[in-house]
Amino acid sequence: MPSYFTSSPGKVILFGEHAVVYGKVATAGSLGLRSYSLVQTRTDRAIGVSLPDVQLTRTWAMNDIPRQARWEGYPYPPPMNEALLEQLAKIVNLGTQTNRSQAAIALMYLHSHLTTDEIADKGYDFSVRSNLPVGAGLGSSASYSVCVATALLKLNGHLAVGMDAIAQRDLVNQWSFQAEKVIHGNPSGIDNTVSTFGGAVMFKKGEKIEPLPGFQSLRFLLTNTRVPRETQVQVANVRKLWEKFPTVVNPMLDAINEISASCKDLFSQQGLERAHLLTQFGELVDVNHGLLAALGVSHPSLEKVREISSKLGLKSKLTGAGGGGCALTLIRDDVSTETVAVVKQLLEAEGFNCMETSVGGPGAGILTLNGPTSITEFLSHEKAYFEQGLDWKYFV
Amino acid sequence: MPSYFTSSPGKVILFGEHAVVYGKVATAGSLGLRSYSLVQTRTDRAIGVSLPDVQLTRTWAMNDIPRQARWEGYPYPPPMNEALLEQLAKIVNLGTQTNRSQAAIALMYLHSHLTTDEIADKGYDFSVRSNLPVGAGLGSSASYSVCVATALLKLNGHLAVGMDAIAQRDLVNQWSFQAEKVIHGNPSGIDNTVSTFGGAVMFKKGEKIEPLPGFQSLRFLLTNTRVPRETQVQVANVRKLWEKFPTVVNPMLDAINEISASCKDLFSQQGLERAHLLTQFGELVDVNHGLLAALGVSHPSLEKVREISSKLGLKSKLTGAGGGGCALTLIRDDVSTETVAVVKQLLEAEGFNCMETSVGGPGAGILTLNGPTSITEFLSHEKAYFEQGLDWKYFV
Repeated sequence: MPSYFTSSPGKVILFGEHAVVYGKVATAGSLGLRSYSLVQTRTDRAIGVSLPDVQLTRTWAMNDIPRQARWEGYPYPPPMNEALLEQLAKIVNLGTQTNRSQAAIALMYLHSHLTTDEIADKGYDFSVRSNLPVGAGLGSSASYSVCVATALLKLNGHLAVGMDAIAQRDLVNQWSFQAEKVIHGNPSGIDNTVSTFGGAVMFKKGEKIEPLPGFQSLRFLLTNTRVPRETQVQVANVRKLWEKFPTVVNPMLDAINEISASCKDLFSQQGLERAHLLTQFGELVDVNHGLLAALGVSHPSLEKVREISSKLGLKSKLTGAGGGGCALTLIRDDVSTETVAVVKQLLEAEGFNCMETSVGGPGAGILTLNGPTSITEFLSHEKAYFEQGLDWKYFV
Repeated sequence: MPSYFTSSPGKVILFGEHAVVYGKVATAGSLGLRSYSLVQTRTDRAIGVSLPDVQLTRTWAMNDIPRQARWEGYPYPPPMNEALLEQLAKIVNLGTQTNRSQAAIALMYLHSHLTTDEIADKGYDFSVRSNLPVGAGLGSSASYSVCVATALLKLNGHLAVGMDAIAQRDLVNQWSFQAEKVIHGNPSGIDNTVSTFGGAVMFKKGEKIEPLPGFQSLRFLLTNTRVPRETQVQVANVRKLWEKFPTVVNPMLDAINEISASCKDLFSQQGLERAHLLTQFGELVDVNHGLLAALGVSHPSLEKVREISSKLGLKSKLTGAGGGGCALTLIRDDVSTETVAVVKQLLEAEGFNCMETSVGGPGAGILTLNGPTSITEFLSHEKAYFEQGLDWKYFV
């Protein structure tokens, strides 16, 4: 009975949010908060789906889900099949535009293309759990998509043993991008790329996403202000300011562009001590937040995070669209556990939600089952399983 | 017995502090807080000086102060006479580098050049009071210098009736710049220019100071955080950031430059409703503060001013070097008296000092004495004297 755990990280934008809309470079990194999936074959030609994070537990008969004939370029994805999507939406029948409906349709869309006769003959159970808050700009849907893609590709033998790692992650990335398209319509591809590859990337609208060479994993306190993000409102507000004062806003966007470039320079400097690197990275964090605040996308809750963390000598910035949502606080290596605890306590006293995490860790991975038999059991020992050396295979 | 009241405003930087160090345009305006001086002849060939704001009350014998022979270009100032300065410092004998010593030396330096035989034969009393806090970046020394220059020029007949207003203010400006040089060593000339001319000006290092055409007087709440400014420290910090990340900081300075340019555009737009003008001016205030904060020159106290005022829909920015000092909060015409009172109360509860004032009002002026007989008497009815139409003669 083949069964695999797959795992993939969320993402955070480190630098360049908003400016990226205007063709500037942005930098994103994989987040230590991850999603985990378990896929295992059944014997009754059914597909059991368990997504407790979106309150979905359901089983479909294998025969109810159409499967695609092989196409040119198989197993790489063909162009989006809109007719199939509509068909699947009807079959899945979970309403429209809800997270769980989109999640189920995305799964079925990949299933429809990737499931081999051998697996179709058996059926399988698929479950996902995530440590990522939904809708917080942390790439939870991409992380889900990468888990789905990795799980179905692996289960159906498309990630054959001995297959080149680059080819494996490329295949996962392409399919997770399909899943993202099902969920979002017109995703940028950043989130699934970061979730697949891990580390950090630099990207520019319409250009290839580039890994950030030499990026070192960094510790952060991630604070969810619990103030709902309003991405479209924030994007529109920046647009209005840009339309009113283009000569002022354009150089601000240029400055943000150069923050990503300076970040790249930092990590490519040979022999730069990590302590110095972290100090300078913190200064870039500070300046980027200032520029975002100057663009009008901060929020009193985000300024509160800055106020509290700066009192203890820590640098913070909003991440994502702003106007609420999350902030990142850099934890330099020399910051004591006590200091982190104090900051956390002060932030939580404001009603915020804090998680110590890292940015720049590994991307998607697979663990051939050995021990835990369910996602719930796995998650109850996540730290031990994940960090203490089970044989995760990352596509890196 | 000729006697004259003179009056001159302080200044605030509206936009462009710090960026001006890097050759960018800045905008400054005259402040509604003013200094007042009274000069009146005596009969005993003495000079009585009363500067209660710096605890100075003293009388010098006319014969103790050297007077300069006429020079080429009289009555426009000759090059600084360093030997005379040293001589005056000894005669004044109030120690070195204190505000009151510098103020007295500046007065005597102008006296030495401008006093005619006729006035020297009589002597005079000179007193100054100021509503401007000293050392808060509000141009108190320039305002003092302009009062001194105006008073001595007027008393000695250098501002003859019928003299062209442009020539009068030019003469006052040149002599007040001399006084500023005595006090500061190497002043920029902005402060005395704003104090002399009133309104608002734009300026760039090494270039001519230009009046901002069409500038309309604006209401502000001026908040002194009482956190001491550390101008040199802030300037050095920006320099460090600029040296570390020139490609990031340069476009930020460009953006600040364009804020002054956009401000100029606003006031030159024909038919722009004042309400719209004020809204857009407020946005520039917001963006400029953000950029200053991004440069690292804000302070928790200044952010507190922003937090409190923004809760009531008002836009604030630091003014001057930052790291403490003062903040300006724009009071749009539609803001109610109650709102202003609430903001003031909240700010004062933080230990800050608030003053409702305006920016862009008249510059230096003279009132031929008619009613009050001392500065103290005058100041006790300042509002009435100043606002209710005594016949101030401004050089505009």
